[in-house]
Amino acid sequence: MFITFEGTDGSGKTSVIKAIVKELEKNGKTEYVLTREPGGNRISEAIRNVILDERFVEMDERTEALLYAAARRQHIVETINPALSAGKLVLCDRFVDSSIVYQGAGRSIGTDRIAEMNRFATDGLTPDLTIFLDIEPELGLERIRRNRQDEVNRLDHEKMSFYRTVHDAYLELATKDSKRIVEVDASQPLEAVIFEVREILKKRASEFFA
Amino acid sequence: MFITFEGTDGSGKTSVIKAIVKELEKNGKTEYVLTREPGGNRISEAIRNVILDERFVEMDERTEALLYAAARRQHIVETINPALSAGKLVLCDRFVDSSIVYQGAGRSIGTDRIAEMNRFATDGLTPDLTIFLDIEPELGLERIRRNRQDEVNRLDHEKMSFYRTVHDAYLELATKDSKRIVEVDASQPLEAVIFEVREILKKRASEFFA
Repeated sequence: MFITFEGTDGSGKTSVIKAIVKELEKNGKTEYVLTREPGGNRISEAIRNVILDERFVEMDERTEALLYAAARRQHIVETINPALSAGKLVLCDRFVDSSIVYQGAGRSIGTDRIAEMNRFATDGLTPDLTIFLDIEPELGLERIRRNRQDEVNRLDHEKMSFYRTVHDAYLELATKDSKRIVEVDASQPLEAVIFEVREILKKRASEFFA
Repeated sequence: MFITFEGTDGSGKTSVIKAIVKELEKNGKTEYVLTREPGGNRISEAIRNVILDERFVEMDERTEALLYAAARRQHIVETINPALSAGKLVLCDRFVDSSIVYQGAGRSIGTDRIAEMNRFATDGLTPDLTIFLDIEPELGLERIRRNRQDEVNRLDHEKMSFYRTVHDAYLELATKDSKRIVEVDASQPLEAVIFEVREILKKRASEFFA
């Protein structure tokens, strides 16, 4: 089973995932893989280094999108597909939806174009379930500023309107694909968010969450 | 005007292009750009370094194809599009057709899939004319062995059947898109090949070739 977590920056994704993993460990469910792009393989890391190189200010939006897709492909082949083939639960922090909203909508390439190009990278792999941690971007960024530990990269130079566009695109995706994508109100206190996510997982991934 | 040169290894592409450029210079036509991927820009070079890194034997075929497309995109944005906008003649040593035949056919990803994914990278840019230097792959590789100066990379480990598949795919492309792609028999002596290419250019790019 393949579960992804999505949300704009500051939605509390990392904390929620940590709590879910703790829950799995507590229940003795060790047949899971927690991963996020670039996925720890050396090829995707090398690609990531090109994407995040601060000198490369002239990087075209489509170049960037293709590089993300390339790193994703290698991550799928080396980590996700083998784990799924072994019957494991795969939890992934961000996946194609992030490219659709950040590159497709945020960078104005077009959500359909990004989705289509990424089908080449995924070769049909789609999450069974996606938890979308929904928070107003202003509130999310405020949370980040209060607790700044993330690395500084090119994305930091983006503007607020960018994050609004990204958030709107997430909402649109969640409406279009409501069977796969489950929205959780991430403006609630963290404990409430975690409780809600746990309830969803108990229902949708009952073999792993008692 | 955008002209590309295609052919399997050892087809004499480099020598033919050199002769054509000499011709342009002789005629005082300096409004041209001669280029090839990765195109000399630092982002495409960085991507190329990842593709050709000999340690990365675990690289998936689709990862490789996406990286080629990313390098191509940046090359288009930094070199090809600006030159075309300035009304220059752009001569390019290999373009999308190479990806279609090498990755799509040679690596069995599928020619249509590679063509479609590359439309994301090119955003509609198609050569006005493509010169396909057609040579039996056995003869081409024999030529290379006689005059070995090319860099050793992963492609060198490929087998003869790979080159046959690539060559067949070139022939198929040339048949399907016979208006854009002009075949030249590259098994002829170099002088005859150059003569034939020059005649084609006089007809199809008369503003640059007297």
